Amino acid sequence: MQFTAAQISILINGKIEGNPEASVSSFGKIEEAREGQLTFLANPKYEDYLYTTQASIAIINEAYELKQAVKPTLIRVPDAYSAFALLLSKYQEIATQQMQGIQQPSYIAPSAQIADGVFIGAFSYIGENVKVGAGSKIFPSSFIGNNVQIGENCIIHPGVKIYHDCVLHNHIVIHAGTVVGGDGFGFAPQADGSFKKVPQIGNVVIENNVEIGANTTIDRATMGSTIIKAGAKLDNLIQIAHNVEIGNSTVIAAQAGVSGSTKIGNQVMIGGQAGLVGHIQIADGSKINAQSGVSKSLKDPYTSVTGSPAAEYTSALRSQAVFRNLPTLEKRIQELESIVKQLLTEKVNSL
Amino acid sequence: MQFTAAQISILINGKIEGNPEASVSSFGKIEEAREGQLTFLANPKYEDYLYTTQASIAIINEAYELKQAVKPTLIRVPDAYSAFALLLSKYQEIATQQMQGIQQPSYIAPSAQIADGVFIGAFSYIGENVKVGAGSKIFPSSFIGNNVQIGENCIIHPGVKIYHDCVLHNHIVIHAGTVVGGDGFGFAPQADGSFKKVPQIGNVVIENNVEIGANTTIDRATMGSTIIKAGAKLDNLIQIAHNVEIGNSTVIAAQAGVSGSTKIGNQVMIGGQAGLVGHIQIADGSKINAQSGVSKSLKDPYTSVTGSPAAEYTSALRSQAVFRNLPTLEKRIQELESIVKQLLTEKVNSL
Amino acid sequence: MQFTAAQISILINGKIEGNPEASVSSFGKIEEAREGQLTFLANPKYEDYLYTTQASIAIINEAYELKQAVKPTLIRVPDAYSAFALLLSKYQEIATQQMQGIQQPSYIAPSAQIADGVFIGAFSYIGENVKVGAGSKIFPSSFIGNNVQIGENCIIHPGVKIYHDCVLHNHIVIHAGTVVGGDGFGFAPQADGSFKKVPQIGNVVIENNVEIGANTTIDRATMGSTIIKAGAKLDNLIQIAHNVEIGNSTVIAAQAGVSGSTKIGNQVMIGGQAGLVGHIQIADGSKINAQSGVSKSLKDPYTSVTGSPAAEYTSALRSQAVFRNLPTLEKRIQELESIVKQLLTEKVNSL
Repeated sequence: MQFTAAQISILINGKIEGNPEASVSSFGKIEEAREGQLTFLANPKYEDYLYTTQASIAIINEAYELKQAVKPTLIRVPDAYSAFALLLSKYQEIATQQMQGIQQPSYIAPSAQIADGVFIGAFSYIGENVKVGAGSKIFPSSFIGNNVQIGENCIIHPGVKIYHDCVLHNHIVIHAGTVVGGDGFGFAPQADGSFKKVPQIGNVVIENNVEIGANTTIDRATMGSTIIKAGAKLDNLIQIAHNVEIGNSTVIAAQAGVSGSTKIGNQVMIGGQAGLVGHIQIADGSKINAQSGVSKSLKDPYTSVTGSPAAEYTSALRSQAVFRNLPTLEKRIQELESIVKQLLTEKVNSL
Repeated sequence: MQFTAAQISILINGKIEGNPEASVSSFGKIEEAREGQLTFLANPKYEDYLYTTQASIAIINEAYELKQAVKPTLIRVPDAYSAFALLLSKYQEIATQQMQGIQQPSYIAPSAQIADGVFIGAFSYIGENVKVGAGSKIFPSSFIGNNVQIGENCIIHPGVKIYHDCVLHNHIVIHAGTVVGGDGFGFAPQADGSFKKVPQIGNVVIENNVEIGANTTIDRATMGSTIIKAGAKLDNLIQIAHNVEIGNSTVIAAQAGVSGSTKIGNQVMIGGQAGLVGHIQIADGSKINAQSGVSKSLKDPYTSVTGSPAAEYTSALRSQAVFRNLPTLEKRIQELESIVKQLLTEKVNSL
Repeated sequence: MQFTAAQISILINGKIEGNPEASVSSFGKIEEAREGQLTFLANPKYEDYLYTTQASIAIINEAYELKQAVKPTLIRVPDAYSAFALLLSKYQEIATQQMQGIQQPSYIAPSAQIADGVFIGAFSYIGENVKVGAGSKIFPSSFIGNNVQIGENCIIHPGVKIYHDCVLHNHIVIHAGTVVGGDGFGFAPQADGSFKKVPQIGNVVIENNVEIGANTTIDRATMGSTIIKAGAKLDNLIQIAHNVEIGNSTVIAAQAGVSGSTKIGNQVMIGGQAGLVGHIQIADGSKINAQSGVSKSLKDPYTSVTGSPAAEYTSALRSQAVFRNLPTLEKRIQELESIVKQLLTEKVNSL
């Protein structure tokens, strides 16, 4: 797609300096941008590049004063970074909206209901009784199991697998390779030491505006639902076990894991590689540091923890500081012991 | 599928109270179940829901005494939970058995041997000389490499990738996105600082009744076989490196990792996110706590470890308890030092 | 493929003892090899098997003196293990070169440019303007997004997903299920507690001779490129966040994670399950132990760290050693306190 400076200035409500017919078809960082690209200057650190860039259009702050002539057409706005980000979002929205229709070969069960404006990529599998809402985009090689419901304007990236009976609301993004609704890890120990599978007949429910990264796994509930609430953001390679609940606008970084039946409140932040045991509650606004191991409920909202096992943040940092000096500490104890022994000996001798 | 109370009571050997023709087509938790669903009451905590549920059939304990009239037809058994679980297993078995035939488009090499009652989903790839045993189900978009052998009644969920030459015995379940038989991570350092790949020409052997979760990776052996023994259960996102052996009925939770050539005994339990270094042995019945880092062999059977580096469980807990008080401990040492210094000064002064 | 002893001896520059027409079609370990297989003896521990093996050809060291007659034709070389490994590499190279052509059904956009000698497996998706260089092999069910460039002699294993605009140079291997170019995890917090996606419009660049394991995720840059430099080797289930740079010949073990914008130098070694926070620099030749949590830049080249938070290796080991004895240390402090208290009491009494 090709856009002129005039068109862009309307989209971001900016003021043009230079040729309004200058046109661009892609984006570039100011230090790398080429002819035909759009760039922006927000960070003063990159100011010098404005005078050497080959970009055709540059978005800059209203307040910025030019030091010499520049090649690109300028579009001035109150905040160049925000305007640029807004433009990107609009661009991606337009590009996504243009994806429509059903590529062949794909497999769509006769009982599936596909709304208007849906895109279904080649090699995608849409099972019996599946519903896909208006404007949703299902990239190639995805698997949508029987009875799955997908709402409106969802984006399912390539190779996502959604098991039967799961429910996705609207405006959800799931990245490539993620598995939604695999069996929970439930096995009953038998007298002979073997394990017998506990059937997992629940599902996964994902609410509005959730985004989930690549190769993450979210298990279906044993009964009932594993729930990812509205606005939660999950990164890559995360494990969410059966019957877990993730609260509204909670953010979880890559490779973290949440064990079965744990309930996480709203606006919680969980760092990368952190792990939570099963059957605990995490209060709203909790912060769990990367690599923490949380083995108990966090009952007070807005507390931070770190370490494995996890403890309150500042006290854990103090313990870690002493840990680094443990060899010195041990030496100090040895010295005390030898002095005290000396004192005791002298006392005995002085009797 | 639709079942009547009469049919269900035969399957679970129960006694009907109410209309034997009441029929259900799905399952629900007692607090949520709707008309046309089957539910059960096992936990007395949920007793009140029995009198408000809209379920059409409910399984309850023989011993339970009704407090008032109920809507659902009741089926009484000695243990309602076990009966319900049994029913679920039978239901899933029947549902799976009904999946048969080869969906199109799929790719099946001419030399592949597909037994009776096999299901092969659309977009699945079956390589040269592959054997698939009777009753096995291969979901859509799976990749089965050349010469792979799959036994009877296995379930391969969507998007599983099994590299060439791997061998699966019978009654194995592998969940979506898991990779079996990728190259082991073997690279020989060269004089110039670069690395040269060590060819990985072994395979993976998975024995009877193993279940493996979603997006797990099990590498092929450098030579010989990486082996997952009968009855082992592996969760999601687990890494099993080349030449590892996992013992019978060993259970491994999500995101754990086992490095190359490590041999794990029978009935071992490994917690989530635990890591094991390469070339060690883990004795039968060992318990490795979540997030542990095991760097040495565990030679005595049935011992528990925790921590990173891992140590015997109770002694590690004691160290962790002191760790939490390290700042206090340091203060106590400071006080001792100042007192002892004072004592020494006085002694000198008294000379 | 069938090879005679005569052919093999030419490939590895060896000397034949026995029937030069003996032929093999596969490889086996000396303790397991069967008629028609090639084996080798390098480790003296396995010497006895040389006299019982059913292998048709065995590679042995020049210097080795036979104790009795053997069944296989022998090929003598200066170093049997190296010769065997070389043979395997050549064999795999030949086997891979033989894969050519485009299996059906596959999806190749009309604007894609596919060079000579390329293999594209069934159910693979090749987007608009994709370029695939000579000799590259794309296994079944892979997704190659719009504008992706793949160089020469790359191997893309089944089910790999490469998002739009990413660039792969030459001789790259990517294992099954790996996702390249998914969106970086960037969300701007809003006043109401929700998060707004930051568009991720950069890409991923992977340089020559990189190998990446299975189910790993490498996110695209917010702007610019996430870069994996020449010769780097990444294992399975690794997370590489947006705008990260991985240096030449750096090696990363399974389940490690690198957070956004962190720059890792050349020939760094990162152990399994290690985690690195964002926006730090790791100097050339650093060694990061398994499960380490690196929260600060490592500025001095060739230093080793371990622990979470990570500290210099030997000092961290000393702290860990004391940690194991913390309960004893606490007791020693208690004893000191009681003795000192006693001394103080006596002093008071003696006044």
